[in-house]
Amino acid sequence: PHMPKFMDVHHGMHGITPELLTQAHQADLDIQADENVDFQRAWGDPDSGMVWCISEAPSAEAVKRIHERTGHPPTEVYPVPVEV
Amino acid sequence: PHMPKFMDVHHGMHGITPELLTQAHQADLDIQADENVDFQRAWGDPDSGMVWCISEAPSAEAVKRIHERTGHPPTEVYPVPVEV
Repeated sequence: PHMPKFMDVHHGMHGITPELLTQAHQADLDIQADENVDFQRAWGDPDSGMVWCISEAPSAEAVKRIHERTGHPPTEVYPVPVEV
Repeated sequence: PHMPKFMDVHHGMHGITPELLTQAHQADLDIQADENVDFQRAWGDPDSGMVWCISEAPSAEAVKRIHERTGHPPTEVYPVPVEV
């Protein structure tokens, strides 16, 4: 069965570097199985401090819990049932 | 040479369907060569009306101009030089 997909949005990650984003992403990957979440990709803008992550997960709450446990709670989590 | 990547954000696209997003995306693809833009993927949430697009482009302005010409100007366009 296909898992719902989510876009989560982080604010305030000014100065994000490839190394820091990789480190944050890896921390999520390390524990995501606890919630059956699959973080797929993430994009960041060091100037505005915005970061977006795409995941497949049972719920927005599952996405939030993993991100909270790794110390970077998302500001918003949206289901994205429509994709091209 | 690698083109910069951008995340653009649309608000107010409530009720977006796979068909409507495909149609909007195709309209962009049809004219994107005029600005050397490459729209890659888009995700939408019909409930919140949010849509995000990932592209490669010479500038945020080029992304905006293509989206404006096809009738769906983005609210924000962010460079995303950091990706995992």
